[in-house]
Amino acid sequence: MIAVNDAQTKHLFDNRYGTGQSTIDGIIRATNVLLAGKRFVISGYGWVGRGVALRAKGMGSHVIVTETDPVRAVEAVMDGYEVLPMETAAKVGDIFCTATGDKSVIRREHMEQMKDGAILANTGHFNVEIDIPALKSLASETREARAFVDEFTLADGRRLYLLGDGRLINLAAAEGHPAIVMDMSFANQALSAEYAIQHAAELERRVYPVPEEIDKEIARLKLETMGIEVDVLTEEQAKYLASWDEGT
Amino acid sequence: MIAVNDAQTKHLFDNRYGTGQSTIDGIIRATNVLLAGKRFVISGYGWVGRGVALRAKGMGSHVIVTETDPVRAVEAVMDGYEVLPMETAAKVGDIFCTATGDKSVIRREHMEQMKDGAILANTGHFNVEIDIPALKSLASETREARAFVDEFTLADGRRLYLLGDGRLINLAAAEGHPAIVMDMSFANQALSAEYAIQHAAELERRVYPVPEEIDKEIARLKLETMGIEVDVLTEEQAKYLASWDEGT
Amino acid sequence: MIAVNDAQTKHLFDNRYGTGQSTIDGIIRATNVLLAGKRFVISGYGWVGRGVALRAKGMGSHVIVTETDPVRAVEAVMDGYEVLPMETAAKVGDIFCTATGDKSVIRREHMEQMKDGAILANTGHFNVEIDIPALKSLASETREARAFVDEFTLADGRRLYLLGDGRLINLAAAEGHPAIVMDMSFANQALSAEYAIQHAAELERRVYPVPEEIDKEIARLKLETMGIEVDVLTEEQAKYLASWDEGT
Amino acid sequence: MIAVNDAQTKHLFDNRYGTGQSTIDGIIRATNVLLAGKRFVISGYGWVGRGVALRAKGMGSHVIVTETDPVRAVEAVMDGYEVLPMETAAKVGDIFCTATGDKSVIRREHMEQMKDGAILANTGHFNVEIDIPALKSLASETREARAFVDEFTLADGRRLYLLGDGRLINLAAAEGHPAIVMDMSFANQALSAEYAIQHAAELERRVYPVPEEIDKEIARLKLETMGIEVDVLTEEQAKYLASWDEGT
Repeated sequence: MIAVNDAQTKHLFDNRYGTGQSTIDGIIRATNVLLAGKRFVISGYGWVGRGVALRAKGMGSHVIVTETDPVRAVEAVMDGYEVLPMETAAKVGDIFCTATGDKSVIRREHMEQMKDGAILANTGHFNVEIDIPALKSLASETREARAFVDEFTLADGRRLYLLGDGRLINLAAAEGHPAIVMDMSFANQALSAEYAIQHAAELERRVYPVPEEIDKEIARLKLETMGIEVDVLTEEQAKYLASWDEGT
Repeated sequence: MIAVNDAQTKHLFDNRYGTGQSTIDGIIRATNVLLAGKRFVISGYGWVGRGVALRAKGMGSHVIVTETDPVRAVEAVMDGYEVLPMETAAKVGDIFCTATGDKSVIRREHMEQMKDGAILANTGHFNVEIDIPALKSLASETREARAFVDEFTLADGRRLYLLGDGRLINLAAAEGHPAIVMDMSFANQALSAEYAIQHAAELERRVYPVPEEIDKEIARLKLETMGIEVDVLTEEQAKYLASWDEGT
Repeated sequence: MIAVNDAQTKHLFDNRYGTGQSTIDGIIRATNVLLAGKRFVISGYGWVGRGVALRAKGMGSHVIVTETDPVRAVEAVMDGYEVLPMETAAKVGDIFCTATGDKSVIRREHMEQMKDGAILANTGHFNVEIDIPALKSLASETREARAFVDEFTLADGRRLYLLGDGRLINLAAAEGHPAIVMDMSFANQALSAEYAIQHAAELERRVYPVPEEIDKEIARLKLETMGIEVDVLTEEQAKYLASWDEGT
Repeated sequence: MIAVNDAQTKHLFDNRYGTGQSTIDGIIRATNVLLAGKRFVISGYGWVGRGVALRAKGMGSHVIVTETDPVRAVEAVMDGYEVLPMETAAKVGDIFCTATGDKSVIRREHMEQMKDGAILANTGHFNVEIDIPALKSLASETREARAFVDEFTLADGRRLYLLGDGRLINLAAAEGHPAIVMDMSFANQALSAEYAIQHAAELERRVYPVPEEIDKEIARLKLETMGIEVDVLTEEQAKYLASWDEGT
């Protein structure tokens, strides 16, 4: 088995750039909200979270990151984002987007603190990142405000907006990944399948990473279609790198 | 007459932030293209062009600006963009967007140089910024590739894509300005109309700018709805500013 | 008299790009502090403040803006910055930089709230933007921590750092504007002086703006030295623009 | 042996954020050049190259990346940079900075194409990234233009500027890494040494990565000193993650 999802040309591009753009796209299509000037809370700073944060910042939002992993949290801080616990972020955020792969990231106690008009979306794994049953139980009234936007009116009159039933917003309200990103992911699958067949004899029954040469070949083809040339190591340079690796 | 379009809270926000986002939104909805890594050519570096350039950069594009005004061209260079004459930009661009308010910005001689797959859109004034008759006369075949996307196949097989018939792409393929931007523009119109009536006696028959206090009042209300507080000049500070303005 | 400071090629470039970079440069030289991940508070969002905010963000800081003008405050929010009253910013900022042209922007009540290690600098007009007498009166101990950095230890042990005696930090600790920025400012002065002499007969005894053609000529020369070409209006385009201005 | 240089809290922060800032700092201190509007060529898109590119962009440069690895080249393109072979970049660059760890990245054939005034710096490993003997052999005249800046005048009158003798520019002309970055690197070394002693019995004679819990502990301490709180997994969340990892 070859772990195609871990290839550089998969997770770097598909998860970061593809989901980054299509999540923003999904939120805008669903709500037509102006991102400039909004406090955009992204939960989870993995490849998807990094991509969404980068694009929200690029659209002019003030981005707030919530994390549980301290290494990722420091990275988010160093990238210039505000890092807050969800308890605090809940009070100030205008838009919330989960990207953790975990469940119950946005819970009842957070919803109880949110501002009137807060928007909730998910671009992680499943529709359990936002505790939807809690949201329903808090609401005294529910209606569809527009396509893909459910309005929940709480007892005190505040309204929270859930996008796409808490399912992946880039698939629910937009068109998922642009073709140009999926091409690299599919190429990974195709070339990895070919590799598995060609090396069937020597491969053991375990999970292999995508061979580095497949990653490089896909990237090389990608650059070619974009009309972009890169440098080639001179013989002297290749030799120097090799010897340096050997520690001289 | 009061020139509402020149108010700070109109052109800064509506033209720059509103059109900036909605133009990007329109292009993505029409094409589902990934902006990251694309060469995005924006013609015209006025408020609209600045907004579109900023957002295209924020989505990961390599932004190229074309201009005829040297002051704006220097500003674009200083803002980190590549500035090229259209003749050169035509050969390398992936996406072209006009925002000049002029006509025939993208002409036959440019189309003849474009790469296969180039995308053409307009977010300026009218559908004359791109020379559509020239595009039609160059094409040996035309078809609607998807909604709002017309494909023009040239004699040599290259395909150019025109979005929304060359009309304002943010209105054609997206929803125009987010409500949150229009509110400031409408507030300008309403408060200016009120002002015109109240001061009818002393106003001459000419074009007036929006009074500065209306601009400030709209901004103040806007901040209030966003829950954002700003500082207030202390008496000492107001006095210092006044005396300093008087030249001491 | 010609108001050279108001020329586009002066205030856009000198104040925004020149002071933007040199202020950051001055703070880094004085302190060797890492800007990534710091809360950088800039007071005043005029051309200088905009430039410093942009560069601090570009170095990875989380930028907070304080303002008294609501229009500028909304602009800062829309540009993605956090806008806070100084009273609140004082509690969270790591680095403070004033750029208002006013006095007593950072006062005793703010200093009393600051975190241990906070850095205070000024890049506005004079050394009155930070209330230095108040800082001195609060300190139980003062010493020079490094060149251009005075450490003030408060009664409770917190230490505040004042850079360059509160004078313009880009002149105090760095080298002021890069030559490449000053060239446009000096060109404005030279060409404006020449213009004043040539038009001495028709000019009245009042303040004139820099003539637009001088601004354009300076920008044109600048582009030429950078090897950058721009488009030229075709006859048809110039005619269209003129007629459009006339309202057809 | 524990490979401290590969720890997340080392290479992410020290190499990317630390070297990113200090390289820019070194170039500005040496030359006082305005980065806004300059074509800044960075060779190598590893952690150091990524950091320098990000900061040069943040200072307003138009950033060009050269690479030999196609995966890194695609990443640079997707990050919005222009990717060119050095042969082409040599003709347009204003500032060149090598960060490859290889030798002869900037060679005689490149220097022969450079513009008058081009600036050459290195922030990679050794002073062999720029072929200095080639530069010397090309020059008809050499002088120290300012501290850390050697001017080489070529036969045709063009002048190239080499910074800090081609040694690490952040050490040569600036102060190296800010203390705040080095603290995480040193913490890695200290805690790894402690770990090696405590686990001496069970460790084999080979190179180990820094244990993940040390990385996390350093990040946790770092956040604490910055006054930043992060979320903690609830029991339910920890359980869900574990079960999900097991594939249910």
